[in-house]
Amino acid sequence: MENFEPRPLRGFRDYLPEEMIPRERMIERIQAVFRRFGFSPLATPALEYAQVLLGKYGADAEMLIYRFRDHGDRDVALRYDLTVPLARVMATHPDLPRPFKRYQIAPVWRGETPGKGRFREFYQCDVDVVGTDSLLADAEMIQVDHAVLSELGIARFRIHVSNRKLLDALSSWLGVEEPEKRRRIYRTIDKLEKQGRETVSRLLAEECGLAAAQVEGVFRFLSTEGTNEDVLSRLSGLLGGVESGRQGVAELQEVLAAASAGGVPEEAMLVDPAIARGLDYYTGTVFETFLADANVGSVMSGGRYDGLVGLFVEERIPAVGISLGLDRLFDALRDQGWVHPSPTTSQVLIAVFDVATARASIEAASSLRRAGIATELYLGGGKLGKQFKYADRMGIRLVVVVGPEEVAAGTAKVKEMSTGEQTSVPILELPAEVRRRLGLDSPS
Amino acid sequence: MENFEPRPLRGFRDYLPEEMIPRERMIERIQAVFRRFGFSPLATPALEYAQVLLGKYGADAEMLIYRFRDHGDRDVALRYDLTVPLARVMATHPDLPRPFKRYQIAPVWRGETPGKGRFREFYQCDVDVVGTDSLLADAEMIQVDHAVLSELGIARFRIHVSNRKLLDALSSWLGVEEPEKRRRIYRTIDKLEKQGRETVSRLLAEECGLAAAQVEGVFRFLSTEGTNEDVLSRLSGLLGGVESGRQGVAELQEVLAAASAGGVPEEAMLVDPAIARGLDYYTGTVFETFLADANVGSVMSGGRYDGLVGLFVEERIPAVGISLGLDRLFDALRDQGWVHPSPTTSQVLIAVFDVATARASIEAASSLRRAGIATELYLGGGKLGKQFKYADRMGIRLVVVVGPEEVAAGTAKVKEMSTGEQTSVPILELPAEVRRRLGLDSPS
Repeated sequence: MENFEPRPLRGFRDYLPEEMIPRERMIERIQAVFRRFGFSPLATPALEYAQVLLGKYGADAEMLIYRFRDHGDRDVALRYDLTVPLARVMATHPDLPRPFKRYQIAPVWRGETPGKGRFREFYQCDVDVVGTDSLLADAEMIQVDHAVLSELGIARFRIHVSNRKLLDALSSWLGVEEPEKRRRIYRTIDKLEKQGRETVSRLLAEECGLAAAQVEGVFRFLSTEGTNEDVLSRLSGLLGGVESGRQGVAELQEVLAAASAGGVPEEAMLVDPAIARGLDYYTGTVFETFLADANVGSVMSGGRYDGLVGLFVEERIPAVGISLGLDRLFDALRDQGWVHPSPTTSQVLIAVFDVATARASIEAASSLRRAGIATELYLGGGKLGKQFKYADRMGIRLVVVVGPEEVAAGTAKVKEMSTGEQTSVPILELPAEVRRRLGLDSPS
Repeated sequence: MENFEPRPLRGFRDYLPEEMIPRERMIERIQAVFRRFGFSPLATPALEYAQVLLGKYGADAEMLIYRFRDHGDRDVALRYDLTVPLARVMATHPDLPRPFKRYQIAPVWRGETPGKGRFREFYQCDVDVVGTDSLLADAEMIQVDHAVLSELGIARFRIHVSNRKLLDALSSWLGVEEPEKRRRIYRTIDKLEKQGRETVSRLLAEECGLAAAQVEGVFRFLSTEGTNEDVLSRLSGLLGGVESGRQGVAELQEVLAAASAGGVPEEAMLVDPAIARGLDYYTGTVFETFLADANVGSVMSGGRYDGLVGLFVEERIPAVGISLGLDRLFDALRDQGWVHPSPTTSQVLIAVFDVATARASIEAASSLRRAGIATELYLGGGKLGKQFKYADRMGIRLVVVVGPEEVAAGTAKVKEMSTGEQTSVPILELPAEVRRRLGLDSPS
């Protein structure tokens, strides 16, 4: 033990109560939105047969998978996302209703190089609709995206929407048919947000082998100038001669119209042909979401992936989903001062005066808990002064003392920590008094 | 893909919505109790340096740890429980307040042979108080145990309580000083609940090398005949001559008295000297909890472990905690018919009549969601009949149709699935009508 400094693995982290309390609140709000849209919870194992995950994400991603031999020498892997396990679930349980609408909130593991906002273990919150071609489902993803961020009190954000079919049309227009070369172009375009026009321009020429005129064409395709209508009509002019181009534009129009009927304001959505999504499995609508006030990359991303779910059963099972990066979003909210860390949710600390009066203190704590008040009985031992200091440090609002005098008189002393004000109340009236002080009985 | 049958690893399982919905409700209730007692949430990584876990659980347990080399060739391991990671957290973050009261609800991984109710991935719900010797903390664990099971609607259960010091005293009384031999005796005694008196008796003789008179003494020690007072006074008579025996009895008395002051009924607690707890790290109070109506082993277990937390910092940091086996308890409740599986929490399905009226259906869904009603817009496509069948299968109570007639008239049709009754309401009154039907506005 001597030479071992106890710490989490690099890229992993502890979530201490200060952070976990607002995180849990955030998760509860997100879940409430998911449920309001009729999504049901699902949980899958952290470990899967490696074969379940391999061949789904592309070579670069695959290298990041935590893969090992288990006790029975099985080739196993920690889940890399929540989407491929969902596909496996659909194959394992063919009787699930369709459309199958599920949410899952769980950690995933990727052996990336850790950096600011990039961890090897992070939480995803996914909603997916499996088993439908209807673009109403794509639009519902945008509505969920908008509803979640609104529920969290975020006002300024934009959902960037595109369609993979446009990229296919672009490839055809460029005369690029080879799948690997297409993918290389998509991945390069995907870097526009992070690395800027100059880099992408150079990469398109050097690594994708495009001529200057072609690169120029790509940037005409990528332009988001004007309204969404403007962008769509420009895309239509550019790619309308290709079947997949016509389809991509038509689908985008339908999705935007349905999302707008679902209450998503026009200005919260941006048709952005640069949205490619790194992963190989997307086939139609794709989206990413950017906060206006925090430069943290996309906080909710997803799209339609009609080929993935059916892979395990050799059946076409269309699906569309969106994934929220919980940690990234939480960190952004915290950095903006929109999240208030607190080390406890206790509203009352019951002090323990001495051994003789401990019983009365325990009883007082129980009476408050029965009244639905989060109550901590001081368990540390030591003098009253130390106990008040503890309440102060923890930000607990009220301290109740039931010492020898109070026991004799059948009372309890209630101290407001912020003002120092103290009152004595009959012990039987303590729960009502505390509820009154905490405002728990007033109409909300 | 051809020869691969997509399934979870043996000993792992998917939690489908039917099960997840009542599970999430159960977890919310458990969390509410934890918070009411002033515990705060903590989360730790799934993976730790193997060194963090090794040497803490004993040799048998250690063999079950999932351990492997990560991308950076680090020796890493999946957490085996939530207690050792807590100890590591206390060392990593020395500034945490003390007493530190935390809860953690998370999966743990053990490469056990899977069997009925035994999985390789299962969820633990732990509460622990770190940094105090006060037996009020031990008593609070019993209160939390009692409060959680009561909150879940379980009436008939018993918390078996003992103290490791009694086992030490027994060893002294038997003349066994060698630590490994002592542990062997404890582990044998621990099997009493599962394997019965005859087997334990034989093992004590054959594997622990005890003489017949000694074995007889062990069973006198283990007897739970009479009231708790009776058992304590018998233990006092048997072991009161040994310091650790006197201490064990006194501690048990204090813990029971405090738990009883905290509202735990006398008959819910049983002094049971056979409770040894398999893991090596316990030092004082130990408890296990058995349901009267389900033979599933202990559903909440724990105890005091004063040596473990300080291991990483070479400081004595006393602690006491209790762990709830979520899966085991859930399965027991389900098998008793106390948990009602349901595939969705949606209360309303909005049918989609055709493309032309889709917009009106989306708007209706949004208006219900804004009114706080869990609403599913049918995303599957297809005729109304199919959509009604879906609602029926999912157990959704109301179906709303906004077809061409309704759009023309500015109304919506509401169908009660159980009776088939249909009503038309003005579209603007739909949310109020649905809330009324679901009883959402009546005082609870």
